[in-house]
Formats: sequence, C-alpha cells, structure tokens
Amino acid sequence: MAKIIESVPNISEGRNREVIEACVDQIRTTPGCTLLDYSSDETHNRSVITYMGSPEACEEASVKLAKKAVELIDLTKHEGGHPRMGCVDVMPFIPIKDATTEDCDELAKKVGARIAEEADLPVFLYENSASASHRKNLAKIRKGQFEGMAEKVKEDKWIPDFGGQRIHPTGGVVAVGARPPLIAFNINLGTDNEEIAKKIANIIREVKGGFKCVKAMGLLIEERNIAQVSINMTDFRVTPLHRVLELVRREAARYGVNVIGTEIIGLAPMQAFLDAADYYLQIEDFDPDVQVIENHLL
Amino acid sequence: MAKIIESVPNISEGRNREVIEACVDQIRTTPGCTLLDYSSDETHNRSVITYMGSPEACEEASVKLAKKAVELIDLTKHEGGHPRMGCVDVMPFIPIKDATTEDCDELAKKVGARIAEEADLPVFLYENSASASHRKNLAKIRKGQFEGMAEKVKEDKWIPDFGGQRIHPTGGVVAVGARPPLIAFNINLGTDNEEIAKKIANIIREVKGGFKCVKAMGLLIEERNIAQVSINMTDFRVTPLHRVLELVRREAARYGVNVIGTEIIGLAPMQAFLDAADYYLQIEDFDPDVQVIENHLL
Repeated sequence: MAKIIESVPNISEGRNREVIEACVDQIRTTPGCTLLDYSSDETHNRSVITYMGSPEACEEASVKLAKKAVELIDLTKHEGGHPRMGCVDVMPFIPIKDATTEDCDELAKKVGARIAEEADLPVFLYENSASASHRKNLAKIRKGQFEGMAEKVKEDKWIPDFGGQRIHPTGGVVAVGARPPLIAFNINLGTDNEEIAKKIANIIREVKGGFKCVKAMGLLIEERNIAQVSINMTDFRVTPLHRVLELVRREAARYGVNVIGTEIIGLAPMQAFLDAADYYLQIEDFDPDVQVIENHLL
Repeated sequence: MAKIIESVPNISEGRNREVIEACVDQIRTTPGCTLLDYSSDETHNRSVITYMGSPEACEEASVKLAKKAVELIDLTKHEGGHPRMGCVDVMPFIPIKDATTEDCDELAKKVGARIAEEADLPVFLYENSASASHRKNLAKIRKGQFEGMAEKVKEDKWIPDFGGQRIHPTGGVVAVGARPPLIAFNINLGTDNEEIAKKIANIIREVKGGFKCVKAMGLLIEERNIAQVSINMTDFRVTPLHRVLELVRREAARYGVNVIGTEIIGLAPMQAFLDAADYYLQIEDFDPDVQVIENHLL
C-alpha cells in the first residue's frame, strides 16, 4: 500500500512557453511523479500543474520546482489578472490513496522548510497546515499581493513560517499546505426553474446549516435550459457524493422534479467512486484494498 | 494505458510445500507479474495461484510455471479429491484493465504453443479460446482425467490443439484459455423464507430466461437465518452488478422483503465498481480512464 499524494502548484507565468516547460520539466524529471495535467492562462499570466506521486517524490519535485521558479520568474515584472504573491504562488498537497491529511501536513512542513533553505523563498503554511486560524485562508494570506508583501511580513501576525521576516526580492513568498481532495460535482434537474435549484442549494450548503464540507449554488444552464445545483465537495471523506445526491433527489421530488444527470468536473480519487458503489450496492464488509484487483498494483 | 491480465493457474499439488513454493516462485520471479494470492487444498491435493501482469509478463510466467510443474509433479503418483488431467491442470487468462477477451485469447494461443514446445506438455484450448464448441467446457475436456487421457486424445474430437496426439507421460495435458472475469455476488434478503430466494434466483438466471451471464441459486444461510440469492456473474461487462441487484430488489419487494446487504466474494476488477458508481450517481459522460486519478498510475 504505497501512499499517493496529489499536488497542484500554481506558477506566476502563463505566457512564456519556455519558462512554463522548464517548470513542468521539474515534475517530469522526478522519478516517482506522474504529471496529470498542466494548463496556462495568458490573461491571468498563470499556470496550474497537476501531478501525483509518493510523499518523497512530491517533496523532491516541489523543491526542484521552487528553485526553478525563483530562477526564471521575476515578480517585479509580472502582470496578470489573477492575484499572486510569489513566482510559485501556492503548493497544495492532497491525500489520494493510503495517505492521510496528516501525511500531507508533514510533507508540507518538510517542503516549506526546504524551499526556504534551498530556494531562498519564504513560506506561509496554509489550509490544514496553517500555524494559526487567521492564516488558513489563502486569499487572506495573499491579500496585498507581491507588491505589498514586503511590508505585510513585518506585521507580527504575518511573519512567514519559514525563511524569516522578509520576501525574496524577485520571487516573493509561497503558500504551502495540506488540503482535502476537492470534487466539483454538479447535479442537473429536469426543470428550467432556477429557483428550485437555488432552494435545494441552500438546503445542502454547510453555511446554511446543511452538510459539512459542501458548498453549493443553484443556477440555470442556458445551453440546455435546465436548472443545476453546482457543488464543491471540499472533502468527500466527510460528506460523500451519494449522501448529497440522495438528499437532492428527495428535495427535488418535493417539486415533482427528477435528477436527470450529474457531472464530475475534472479528476477525483477512486475512493469517491468506490464509496458510492459500496453504498448503493449495499456491500457488507467491503475491503477495496484487498477486493479491488487493481489496488494491488497501486 | 497498460493492459492488465489476470491468470489463475491450478497445479496438481496441494501437500508438498517445497513443490508448491517452487511453482509459485515462477510467478514471483517474473518481472511485471504481481502475485495476488495462492492457496492449497490437501484433500484435493491441488493449489490455486492468482496473479496479474502485462500480457508479456503473463506469457513468461505461464511458460516457466509449466516447465517447473512438469519437472516436479508426477501425475502417475497423484491422488486427490479434485478431477485433474495435468501437472498444471488449467490456465485461464482474464481481461482486467484495458485488455479484451481477444487479447487474452491471443495470449492463450501463444502460451499454448510455447508450453507444448518448451515444456513438452500437450495443450487443449478451452472456454473463449476453444477450437470447437464441444471443447469449451473444462469439465468435458477433463473427463476421464489423467488416467484416461492417453486413450482419449486418440479420438479425433479430442486431439490436443498443440503438442500432438499424445500426453506427457508424467505431466499429462493442460487446458489453456481466455475467460471473462467472474464475480461471485451474493444478495442477502430480510427474510428466513428460502423459497423467496429460490423464486428470485429462477427469475434472474440465464438458463431460466433471465439475464445473460448470470448463474444463481436461492438458499438459506443458517448461521444468520436469512435467505440468500447466491450469484455467479460470469461476465459483468454483459450484465452488470447493479442491473441484477435492482431486479432482485424489485422482485423481493413483491413479497414485502428488502435486500439487507450484499457480498462480493474474493476479488473483482475496479471497472465493476466504477460501473455501479456511474449508474447510481447518474454521471454524464463519465470517463474513468481520465477522471479517476489512480487510473493514471495503472
């Protein structure tokens, strides 16, 4: 049972292909890492890299990427639509298989210490790795952006966790932390009545007293003329897909409306689907690590 | 997307640990093969080895295993409760991931030719690889067992597919073939009325006009005092788990009985569970090869 962790670093370069490729190469050339995807946004002038690997492989790739980003990306010359505070702006670590949030947190702290030391880039720990509750939220850490960061880190509540009370002159600072696996899950309703989707979204949302780790909004998908409950499942291990779907089915039925389909946007861990199979098939004592043949290869 | 094939060779030795380990070692020492399980039955004097690997790795392991079995297992001295015709008695190849029945059939024919040549063991192709319909069923090929096989192969309809019209004097013959992935799936009912399970089994069984690739019987599980529909799903790609379960739920409801749980016995391919998740979660355009993170590692 090898631990698998996913990381989705964002770098502050979305235009210069040479720089982007040189950064992505740091992942490609690290044994034990599998590059899943990378995409660049020219308007944001930012690229998102998605890869996974063992904790050790992710550690190596992260440090290599930070060093390369410091070398090639100069924030004093950066402009783009997306808020940013560092050459590599954020580095989340997400547990995928046989790894816990604690494993990711331990990795984040190792990576943070090494990036400060080896890439000379001060590090904020964020999300599940934050050293204080006001430092959990990435947007709050990043507020003031690169241009304001040299002043911000002088405040007691914004001293970086690693690398001293300073920023790298061209590289800025980076946020590193463990976060749960997020799944973007949309539920399509057999109605063009947007209000029904909004009402259901309000029932399932954590902030309205619904399910923990569920963010939701109701909207109309104009191309298809159907109402949709659009959901971010911020931790499917706390609230699983099937529980949300079953409540949405039940609440929609109150209006005589059916669920006509759902969408999983992007990637999700196998466990999220195995949990659904286990629930709906009512399997007794299901042990996926043993009973799912392919798990013996992972 | 690497092809993964499972093989479950049975050898005619279930008592002598040294011989069993020497045979299992042929799998352990073949790069690209993962040993999943092996178990021996002393009464049957037979061992079942389960492993998986690339088609190339399975080919190597199969030929090595046949050579070792011919070397160490003497059927003229074999006694045991299970019918057998060869030192390695049967070698099925089962598609698990990104592999088709055709891939397994191709592998079976390569392995059959090499075993006849390199291990001097005549080979019958069976199941999906059989050269005639009367040679599909293993029990029919094996009828007469080792002791009757030298005479049987003289009949025109029982000439081995590879290795000539003869048997190996101590090793006998072996059946090699492609077969679909079989899943043992039991459905437990909230009743102690065995008759209800029997009626439902008769509704879903292929031989009674039910689902293709479904074998089923109804029985009483005495330890729990519940009725069970015990099912062999001989090809979940033809009839999936969820379709059988939904019909059983519906038929049981006719007697006011609920499904209280199900059992997956042993191992099953991930696809069987992803198919269930896809169905019950109503996912639109689900693409597991892309969307399930771990699939990028397989």
